[in-house]
Order: sequence, then C-alpha cells, then structure tokens
Amino acid sequence: MASETSHSDAVLYEVTDTGVAVITLNRPERLNSWGADISAGVYARFDRAEADPAVRVIVLTGTGRGFCAGAHMGAMQDLGASISGDTDVSKIVGERHPHFLTALRKPVIAAINGACVGIGLTHALMCDVRFAASGAKFATAFPRRGLIGEYGITWILPRLAGWGAAADLLLSGRTFYSEEAQRLGLVKEVVAPQDLLKRALEYAEDLARNCSPASMAVIKAQLYGDATDEVVNVSSRAETLMHESMVRPDLVEGITAFFEKRPPNFPPLA
Amino acid sequence: MASETSHSDAVLYEVTDTGVAVITLNRPERLNSWGADISAGVYARFDRAEADPAVRVIVLTGTGRGFCAGAHMGAMQDLGASISGDTDVSKIVGERHPHFLTALRKPVIAAINGACVGIGLTHALMCDVRFAASGAKFATAFPRRGLIGEYGITWILPRLAGWGAAADLLLSGRTFYSEEAQRLGLVKEVVAPQDLLKRALEYAEDLARNCSPASMAVIKAQLYGDATDEVVNVSSRAETLMHESMVRPDLVEGITAFFEKRPPNFPPLA
Amino acid sequence: MASETSHSDAVLYEVTDTGVAVITLNRPERLNSWGADISAGVYARFDRAEADPAVRVIVLTGTGRGFCAGAHMGAMQDLGASISGDTDVSKIVGERHPHFLTALRKPVIAAINGACVGIGLTHALMCDVRFAASGAKFATAFPRRGLIGEYGITWILPRLAGWGAAADLLLSGRTFYSEEAQRLGLVKEVVAPQDLLKRALEYAEDLARNCSPASMAVIKAQLYGDATDEVVNVSSRAETLMHESMVRPDLVEGITAFFEKRPPNFPPLA
Repeated sequence: MASETSHSDAVLYEVTDTGVAVITLNRPERLNSWGADISAGVYARFDRAEADPAVRVIVLTGTGRGFCAGAHMGAMQDLGASISGDTDVSKIVGERHPHFLTALRKPVIAAINGACVGIGLTHALMCDVRFAASGAKFATAFPRRGLIGEYGITWILPRLAGWGAAADLLLSGRTFYSEEAQRLGLVKEVVAPQDLLKRALEYAEDLARNCSPASMAVIKAQLYGDATDEVVNVSSRAETLMHESMVRPDLVEGITAFFEKRPPNFPPLA
Repeated sequence: MASETSHSDAVLYEVTDTGVAVITLNRPERLNSWGADISAGVYARFDRAEADPAVRVIVLTGTGRGFCAGAHMGAMQDLGASISGDTDVSKIVGERHPHFLTALRKPVIAAINGACVGIGLTHALMCDVRFAASGAKFATAFPRRGLIGEYGITWILPRLAGWGAAADLLLSGRTFYSEEAQRLGLVKEVVAPQDLLKRALEYAEDLARNCSPASMAVIKAQLYGDATDEVVNVSSRAETLMHESMVRPDLVEGITAFFEKRPPNFPPLA
Repeated sequence: MASETSHSDAVLYEVTDTGVAVITLNRPERLNSWGADISAGVYARFDRAEADPAVRVIVLTGTGRGFCAGAHMGAMQDLGASISGDTDVSKIVGERHPHFLTALRKPVIAAINGACVGIGLTHALMCDVRFAASGAKFATAFPRRGLIGEYGITWILPRLAGWGAAADLLLSGRTFYSEEAQRLGLVKEVVAPQDLLKRALEYAEDLARNCSPASMAVIKAQLYGDATDEVVNVSSRAETLMHESMVRPDLVEGITAFFEKRPPNFPPLA
C-alpha cells in the first residue's frame, strides 16, 4: 500500500494496488473517540477517495483497541460545564451527519477493530458492510448519558436489526459484543482480531476487481433511496436505470467476460 | 412490590421500589383472552403508570398459562351468532388500537408467560422488548378464523421479523413457539417459565436505574416516528432533539456520573 | 395432480385435489433462465390460477438443476452485440415487473430447486414464502455483469434480510447457498432436494385446507400495501377491513369450526 500520511495524523490514508482506499482513525490513546480532528480528517479522506478514479472501494477502520468509542468525552466534559440550549452541537458530530457515508458512490466497508459506541456506532452502521473483531464491544450508550438517538441511528439500526433489537439496544444503551452484533444483523462476519483487516481487504478487493464501479454506485443509491418508497415506484425507476446501463460499456464487458470465463475489466467511475 | 389491586381484578398493578410498574392480565381461567374487562383495566393501568413520576419502566405480563390467547372467544361466539356489517368491532379490540403502547413515553417490556395469539400477539408486538417463557405458544391465527391482520400487526410484525417471516406467520396462521419467535426476532430472550418475571424485572430495573427517563421517551418516539421517513429528515430532527437535550439536567448528570464512575441519578419525567 | 400441459411447454401447470396450483419453469437445459417463452408462460399460468376458484394457493418451482438462473444469457449475448440506450429492456424482464406476484390475491410459495440468480432471484423474493433445496446456489450477480438492482430487488431484499445483508449481496453480487439464505431470512426452510416439492406442497395444502381464501387475500394486500405507511393509518384501515370481514361467511365458519374442533370449510374466492 502507498501511504501518504504520517503516523501523527488523526486519520491515515492508504490505497492498495487493487483500488481499495483504507481510511484509519488514528487517535488510539482515546479509542478514536469522535472529535474535531478526526471528523475533519475523515471528511477530507472520504472526499479524496470519492474523487480518485483509482479508488473503487473504501475500508474504514481504526488503530489500537477502539474503532470509535463515541464522542470525545474530554470535549463532552468541557461541554458539560457550559451546556445550554445554545451549545453548538455540531462540535460533537462534525460538519456532516453520518449518513453522508450512504450518499457516497463507492461502497464503504467497516473493519470494526474494537470499541464501537455512540456516534462511533452510528458511523459504523452507515457503512454498507461491516466486519468486526471477535470480542469488540458495542453500545448505543445514549440513554445512559442523558442523550438521544444521535444523527440517524434511529433510522439505520432498526433497518439492519429489526425494530425489536433496535428498541432493546437504543432504550437500554447496554453493552453487547461482536458475536451478538452478528446474530442481530449488524455485522456480516466476526473475525479474529489479527485477521480482521486482511479479511475486510479481501472482501473489498473482490468488489474492486470483479464489480462494475458504475453498477455499485447505482445499486448503492437504490439501496438507500428506495428505503421508504413503494415497490411500484422502485421497480419503475429500475427500468429507467436499466436503460441507462445500456449505454455504459460495463454491461457489454460484464456479459462478454462472463461468456469468456475471464475477470471483467470495468472502467473507473467518471 | 406495593400492590393496590385485588386478585379478582381483571388487571393487576404493582410498582417496585426501583420504579417498575408491573401490569398483569388476570383472567387465567380464559387464558387472559382480550375482552372488555381486560381492555378497560389495561388502559387504566397504563394511564396510571404513564402519569406516575415514580414509574420509569412498565412490564406487561399475565397470570396462569396464557399471556393473552386472542379475542375472548366466548364474546366472539356470541358475536358470531349476530355478525353483520354493523357489528361493533370496537367491542373486540377495545377503545384503543394496540399501537397506543408505542405512543407511551415509557418503555414497555412484555413478559410472555404463555399463549400469545391473535390480538394478544398484536399487543405483545407493540411492546418495545419481549421476553418469553420457553415453550410458550404463539400464532397470528387470523386466516384460520376468517379474520384479517388485526389492528397494526401487518405493520409491526414485518418490522420485527422481516417480510418473509411475516408472510409465513400471517398467511398460514400456524402455531409457533418461543424458540422460533426468538430466532425470528420477535422475542429478545427465552427464559425458563419460573424465571421469566424475574428476568424481565431485572432488565426493566436496569433501565429504571441507569437510563434517563427523558432520553428513553425521546428515543422511543424516534424509534417509531422515524420508521417511514427518510434518513435526511430523521437525522435533521435528531439535531433539534440534541439541542433540546442540552437544556435538560440529564445530560450533565449522565456525563458527570460516567466520569465519576457512579450510577447516574436522573430526574423523573415531568 | 391433473396436468394439462405437455413436457415441451416452457412452463408446466398442474392443480392438486386440495386446490394448490403448481407452476413449473421447464427449460432445464438452460437452468430455466428467464426469456420470452418462460415469461409468457408464467403470466398465463398465474392468470389462470388467480381466476380459477378451485385454486387457493400457488407453488412456483422449476425442473432440473435450476430454479431460474437469471436472464437468458443467450438472449443477453445477442443483446450485448447491439446494446444501446434504445434497447428494449422489456425483452429481458417481460411484460410485467416481478412485483406482480405480490399483487395477486393468492399466496405464492416458491420451491427453489436450484440456481436462483439475478432476475430469477428477484422473482423468487417476490413470492410470499420460500423453501429451498439444500445446496441451491443464489446470487444477485448484477454488479458483476455491469447491471443494476433489477426490477424491485432493492425494495424486497432489504425488507426480507435487512439493509446490511442486502448491501452485501447487492454490492458484491457474490454467490451464496440455501443455508445462508435461510440464516439471512430469505428462505423459510432448507429441505433435501428430493423432499423439496413434497414439503412445499404440504405447507401449501395446509393453507388451502385451513385458511380462508378471503382472509389470505386481505392479509397479503395488507402485508405489502402497509409496508411504507404509518402505523396509525395501517391500524385504521384494519378496522375497516374488520368491518368488511363481518359480512363474509368465513368469519362465522372459522369461529364455529374452532368451537366444534373440526376443519373449517371456507368458500373459494369470488
């Protein structure tokens, strides 16, 4: 991988030869808790990955024992001292709401290496696919801090795990672990910690090599955009999207490669 | 627990020292099937629990072998004799549709002690979290009686179990048991019958002790209110709710208690 | 079973004595891949089953090693040679979008005997309940061919399996098998291949014998029609539907049969 970041950066960035950008939260001393340094770095790295034609898939992970252990509680403590209705809550979440991840054209794979709590969990759930290290600790935590369902988690969590599991996790704020997260549909696979990034990269590289970037962009937009509409409208839009796919080279390449039993060679996103 | 009901009441009511109201359907001789006596008692008890600042969490359960085995079939049989388009179906469901439970400010935990059928199942599914006794019997039963998906079950059941399991259970009306209910996401935990109420109370008391009543009220409203909206609107409302949380004492108490490693002391709901 | 089709037909049709129509895709030499012959046959058979009062439940299956292995790639290959924005994509999907299955009044049970891919998977997921042969192969496959989420799969797949599993399966297009399909909620039961049709028929015949056709028609319409609405509206419509059920003979028959401990004798759909 080619790294263009120094280890003192709050967020690291590397791109593999196969077109996978790895974005790594890098404040291990505070379990990568979400603060202004991390949020600014995350936005910049995702913008770069979205804009770079060489990047086809994005992996989000963290260094150390935490993936992202919620809002930076030091900042929260300062905030606590002077909290009022005028408090600028955007200092906690950053300039973008976590669902910005669902609006990207490229798939985002989370490799949850450790503690994944509060706004960190919201961000993880807004990724498209999640791998987690065995034993990683999860919690919404909100009701235990006097908080509310932050920035879209009440939308995405029930859609991943069903409303029953979501009610349990959101109303109790209790701790749970990777294994339960997988059983509830929050995580695709649980992996031994030392193999986590390798496995997430393997999955991401399969997509980068074998899936059309244009197809993935359309499908991702369908997946979230169709969430609250009726099937007749969704299927009608799919017909329009089918017509649009006919003028892209990806379809002929995909079908030809299939018949020739060779890997496809799809063009990058414009 | 302080009980203020007599055992002849159709619905019993007790409040624990930790602020959990236990509402118990008490017509075991008919498996607590839903009729005018039970519905009136249920509404009165829930109104009381909602209004009482000492109550933070509500548990709903039944005495005997049934949780609620559907509409009171004696009443249904009488109804059958004189059924017509003018029949007052509100005599079956009562004055409120079961989704009144989702509109409460306080979490409702179901402890499903036995048979949970028809309108009884609809009520159970409108609770926030469900524990069930091992071996408890479930069924929608509607198509086997010439009935339809009663009072919101076609909304909540697919949101708990997915549309595939919901189609199976609603179109067949077949019997299933606690263990399958858990696998399908309808039930959080299956517990030995003699430990069921103890376990449900343990869970409820954790919420009563450690979760902000104001937070739980907001989160519960988010969970159901956000079900059919788009993520951008949901997240935007969360920002407003964050601002509102800044003027409540719960947030400072929650953060302070966290740093002081002590249980929080949240105020009751106004 | 009375068969009125010859084995050279693209789609076979039989009706059991208990009122189950079995519609069988019959182009095993191309794994029943979806083409003009199969789509025309499917529509004609479903129209017939819907119109025939003797039919109460419909089973959809395939002959040979495939259920439906996607769009007919021979046709796709021809299409590839001359693809443009003007290409008539209705030649791939046929005259109806797959969600026509959800608009039928009668339950549709899929018996997935083998490969279930692309538009074949979309059709299978639009059935109400799915049984699958052990080892059957599934894939969305779309991004690997330069395609998009075809004709409603981005609506139904996340509603069956949750948005997390749907993102994985749609963005990767990877192969998966019956056992995972069941774990994800896409399939009700996995059955040994030689027992698959027998088991699907057993389930269908239970519905045909014991469930009111009128009830099943109403419940099916509720299940899909209520998917994107709010609970208050859904429950309000249920009250109207309850009133309508009062003027049908099914309700009195259902309750009477229950008390007499005998099978019900429900009238066919008008």
